[in-house]
Amino acid sequence: MRNLRLTISYDGTRYVGWQVQPNGLSVQEVITKAIKKLTGEDVNILSAGRTDSGVHALGQVASFRTAATIPVEGFRKAIQNFMPEDILIRDVVEVPHDFHATFSAKKKRYRYVILNSRFHNPFSRKYVWHYHAKLDSAAMHDAAQVLIGTHDFRSFETNWPNKATSVRNVMELTVKRQRYCPLWFGSDDIQPSPENAGDFIWLEIVANGFLYNMVRTIVGTLVPVGRGRWTRDDVSRILHAMSRGEAGDTAPAQGLYLVESIYE
Amino acid sequence: MRNLRLTISYDGTRYVGWQVQPNGLSVQEVITKAIKKLTGEDVNILSAGRTDSGVHALGQVASFRTAATIPVEGFRKAIQNFMPEDILIRDVVEVPHDFHATFSAKKKRYRYVILNSRFHNPFSRKYVWHYHAKLDSAAMHDAAQVLIGTHDFRSFETNWPNKATSVRNVMELTVKRQRYCPLWFGSDDIQPSPENAGDFIWLEIVANGFLYNMVRTIVGTLVPVGRGRWTRDDVSRILHAMSRGEAGDTAPAQGLYLVESIYE
Repeated sequence: MRNLRLTISYDGTRYVGWQVQPNGLSVQEVITKAIKKLTGEDVNILSAGRTDSGVHALGQVASFRTAATIPVEGFRKAIQNFMPEDILIRDVVEVPHDFHATFSAKKKRYRYVILNSRFHNPFSRKYVWHYHAKLDSAAMHDAAQVLIGTHDFRSFETNWPNKATSVRNVMELTVKRQRYCPLWFGSDDIQPSPENAGDFIWLEIVANGFLYNMVRTIVGTLVPVGRGRWTRDDVSRILHAMSRGEAGDTAPAQGLYLVESIYE
Repeated sequence: MRNLRLTISYDGTRYVGWQVQPNGLSVQEVITKAIKKLTGEDVNILSAGRTDSGVHALGQVASFRTAATIPVEGFRKAIQNFMPEDILIRDVVEVPHDFHATFSAKKKRYRYVILNSRFHNPFSRKYVWHYHAKLDSAAMHDAAQVLIGTHDFRSFETNWPNKATSVRNVMELTVKRQRYCPLWFGSDDIQPSPENAGDFIWLEIVANGFLYNMVRTIVGTLVPVGRGRWTRDDVSRILHAMSRGEAGDTAPAQGLYLVESIYE
């Protein structure tokens, strides 16, 4: 048996999310069925993160065990042939037997994109959260820094109490204006715009793990900061309150992207 | 009666095109019905260009006469309220009675976007033409220059013979690699990438008018140049042959954008 790791991009618009659900089509189901067609096997696909309905992925990672001996690049092309246009299998590699897409992840990066402009954009309506009123992205960035470090994030967790701990380590959290929309893979070459220039606000967050709706609740808490209603001190207060009711609304799904899962 | 001019952006994916058709929903029909709901009038909406099924618009221009006395910004907001998310009414202004969205246009700008990369992009599948094999965009740009000026473009016209002339004046035609995708309004701040950098190839064309499928046939003729199969001389030969059979294929609709119509 080989252990194979997939790197996957998908437009989450049409899906109930990553995980198989009774009420609609999931990305996991589409990929599981493709592997069944290719190898005849009923594999159990593990993933780096269970993205919700409407949430996108640039670099979702999944792993599964297979007895098939097809070389990995041939495997990639063969699975891709069964994929609809909104799912792309970017990479297939063989990994050690103890690799587990979920538990081996050291950290993950998510991106949340707000279109902060007078008009919505007909082309990005499924890919950003359009927020009409002007947001102070520098204030949002400043307030976000209080979330960096190891904290109990239950104020930013939808389904607390959960079965395990709500403690997570946020290693990086930035909020920047950008001129560009997020619909491509690489972002390293994107320079942030000067404050008050550029209609797109990108929140980038890296943590060792994420709670249910954590990124969307952080966004929904930073937006009132961008409006001047809350301050950095309010974000600190909300974090330490350890109560979901203190935080802001859950931002809509379509602005959220699982960017990458980091294993090394 | 006032003569009103609309500036409209739309994602053409869901529509049979601008013009009312018996076989599906058109952008013109959606807007005509919204004006009917707002004013009770059955207006005849003229447009700068009849975009085809799947073709997009960043700045389509339309005009119509109305007895309604609603101020223009209120008119814009009221029509927008009836619009689906994939159509945006960007601007409504009152124009002189002799303004005609079609015939008053001095020139129009179209953009065609190719994603020239190994992988397709799940997010831009409806907004670019994915072309897998490497294209030499500098050679395409060079060859495109033979089309500048006043020529009979019937080699690039799908439905020749048409009722009128096939002579048009192409004032600008550039082919450049870009790092970015086209899904926003402005492009003035986009710097072209160095040759062989950037996965997006943008063709921009300005002319005093366009024949049916003219931009898409020009693209389909320049792609073989980018592949090294045809040269600048071949493009010149095709232009002077005045025969559609000599030119390349018609490139797919989803990469095409009506960017603006210029009246002054």
